[in-house]
Amino acid sequence: MQSQSEMKAALQSYVDNFNAGNAEGVIALFAQNATVEDPVGEQPLEGMEAITAFYTQVIASGSKLTLAAPIRGSHSNSAAMAFVVESNMDGQIIHINVIDVMTFDESGKISSMRAYWGPEDMQVM
Amino acid sequence: MQSQSEMKAALQSYVDNFNAGNAEGVIALFAQNATVEDPVGEQPLEGMEAITAFYTQVIASGSKLTLAAPIRGSHSNSAAMAFVVESNMDGQIIHINVIDVMTFDESGKISSMRAYWGPEDMQVM
Repeated sequence: MQSQSEMKAALQSYVDNFNAGNAEGVIALFAQNATVEDPVGEQPLEGMEAITAFYTQVIASGSKLTLAAPIRGSHSNSAAMAFVVESNMDGQIIHINVIDVMTFDESGKISSMRAYWGPEDMQVM
Repeated sequence: MQSQSEMKAALQSYVDNFNAGNAEGVIALFAQNATVEDPVGEQPLEGMEAITAFYTQVIASGSKLTLAAPIRGSHSNSAAMAFVVESNMDGQIIHINVIDVMTFDESGKISSMRAYWGPEDMQVM
C-alpha cells in the first residue's frame, strides 16, 4: 500500500502538472486500466486511451486548479482533495467547486478518480 | 433522486446539528441501514444502533466542525464536503482535516458516509 505522503505527493503532482500544462505528467499518474468518473454520476472513462484523450483536451483548454484546503489521506489506499477549477469558456471565466477522491493500486498508480461537483457548483465569475 | 440543494442542505444540517450538540438531529439524517466508514479504511459501522452510539459519543465529546470550502454536489445522489474537526483530547486541542462523501437513498436519507482522513491529517495545535 502507498504511504499517506506518497498518495498526497501524487495528488499534488496532479495539480502541479495540470497547472503547468503538462498533460503527460498527469496521465502518467494513472494505471493502465484506471477509471475516471468526472463528474460523479456520469459514465466513467475506462482505460488509458480514454483518460489520455480527456486530460489532453482539458489541460489544453488552459483550465487551472487551486486547492481549497490541504489534501486529505485515509486509513487505506485513498486520498481526497477540495479545489476550484478556473476555466475560460468563450471568454467567460467559470469557477467549478470540486472534490476529487483518488484510489491507488499496489504499484502506486491511480486506479480510480471520482470528481464530486454538480451543476450548482459551477459559477460564472 | 434528491436535488443538489436538498443534499447540500442535509450536509449543512449535519454540520449545524453537530456543532449545536444535537446528536439526534445528526442521526435523523441517516437511513436505518446506513453505513458510516470513518475513517475510510476502517470497518464501517452498519445500521442505526451503531450510528447512534457513534454520534452520541463524538458529539458529547464537544468536537466541532468548520467547513473548509463550500459543500460540493455531484451529477447523482452524492455530495461531499471538506472540513476541520476540532477536538479537545485531555486538554490538548486537536485539528483533523477531513473530507466526507455522503450518498443518499430515494427517501432523502444518508445511506453511506465515508470520511477521508489519515493519521497525518491530525495535528496537535
